[in-house]
Amino acid sequence: MRPDELKDGERLDYLHREDFKIIQNPAYFMFSMDAVLLSAFATVHKSETHMDLCCGNGIIPILLAAKNKGISYAGAEINEKLVDMAMRSVALNGLEEKIAIHNMDIRKMDGFGADFDVVTANPPYMAAQTGAKNENYDMAIARHEILCSLEDVVRAAARLLRFGGRFYMVHRPGRLGDIVASLRQYNLEPKILRFVQPKVDSPPNILLIAAAKGAKPHLDVKPPLIVYDEKGQYTEEIRRIYYE
Amino acid sequence: MRPDELKDGERLDYLHREDFKIIQNPAYFMFSMDAVLLSAFATVHKSETHMDLCCGNGIIPILLAAKNKGISYAGAEINEKLVDMAMRSVALNGLEEKIAIHNMDIRKMDGFGADFDVVTANPPYMAAQTGAKNENYDMAIARHEILCSLEDVVRAAARLLRFGGRFYMVHRPGRLGDIVASLRQYNLEPKILRFVQPKVDSPPNILLIAAAKGAKPHLDVKPPLIVYDEKGQYTEEIRRIYYE
Repeated sequence: MRPDELKDGERLDYLHREDFKIIQNPAYFMFSMDAVLLSAFATVHKSETHMDLCCGNGIIPILLAAKNKGISYAGAEINEKLVDMAMRSVALNGLEEKIAIHNMDIRKMDGFGADFDVVTANPPYMAAQTGAKNENYDMAIARHEILCSLEDVVRAAARLLRFGGRFYMVHRPGRLGDIVASLRQYNLEPKILRFVQPKVDSPPNILLIAAAKGAKPHLDVKPPLIVYDEKGQYTEEIRRIYYE
Repeated sequence: MRPDELKDGERLDYLHREDFKIIQNPAYFMFSMDAVLLSAFATVHKSETHMDLCCGNGIIPILLAAKNKGISYAGAEINEKLVDMAMRSVALNGLEEKIAIHNMDIRKMDGFGADFDVVTANPPYMAAQTGAKNENYDMAIARHEILCSLEDVVRAAARLLRFGGRFYMVHRPGRLGDIVASLRQYNLEPKILRFVQPKVDSPPNILLIAAAKGAKPHLDVKPPLIVYDEKGQYTEEIRRIYYE
């Protein structure tokens, strides 16, 4: 891709994976560490199918496709501008056969059956009514639960997954009560929980959770993932997640 | 108390708190680290009232009374033999005015109103149908959810607490899904969660949770409590909890 194929305000970032690149736009959407952690936490086994809800610029399907053996990956995104960026990133990496990007409201995915093996989501975290919203609409819908609430995401995941299928989500620790209650309500049983802490002695600021449709209750709580060591450098595990 | 006032098989242990002592019986019931951690996690403010569900030999009311400013503490226990031990430990420490021990089935606490400020529970962890049960009945009902299931405990806590009152429980991480679902069902909102890990890089094996009756959703997840340092010694925080 020639740099002049990027649209106004866009930039091209490198993913340290299979030489994959991604188109971003600081005015609309930049992927964060959350997306990287979620794609390292989720697994798509050989011959499995995947769908990412609220996929933004397609970062999660692209990272998953780089590290997993699934047969197909997909993303659903309501914002046309992000769908356009995601589709161009997919093409840029030669992944058109593997990744489908759908311009869709996750609250209306009637065209799909309950047959996905894996669903992922890095949904907006901020309650619709809270936080600084003096930002543009594209930014606001990516950050706030305006068009894609926690319950919308969980309901969509439950509808798309086959029995036994897995849902992986990244969210905020403060929402754990709502998350567990919502998962249970839609018959997605929480199976793996991992908190991410900036430092070994700081409270977690990110939560990774895996649930399985129709599974029996038992939650496997992993040791926390620590981001920075005592020198303020990325820990070995974080470096592995980003660069290997 | 003279040693000859102990009954057959009993022993007297020291609590490192106000010179308090407790009667234990290895054949029936010995308190564990869980009880110590729960009583350090829970807080009973000045003029507040407290009830411990499934109180065993009374360890939690006694430890709470040693460190808090509440006006009254209580314990409910179904096993007469443990009630007898608990009452003698209360008397031994001169706490009869502060701590009441009730020989009661927590599923039938009709005599109490919804007016407690604080309820605590270190309930049996093992599902009624699982684990090694070739033990005596006293041991079995203290360890297995036979007479006191997770739901029994949560229901009793919800019934006893005033609006805004706090419920503190110690349990196993694997049950977090059931715990959150059960608390929500009975209008107890999870507010604080802390995992306890044997080491800094091991998965948690104990969970401490605080919920408040009728509160708004937001869970404050604390940094994990680490039990042993890299030399295999108690960490400073554990030493403080045990000995200060």
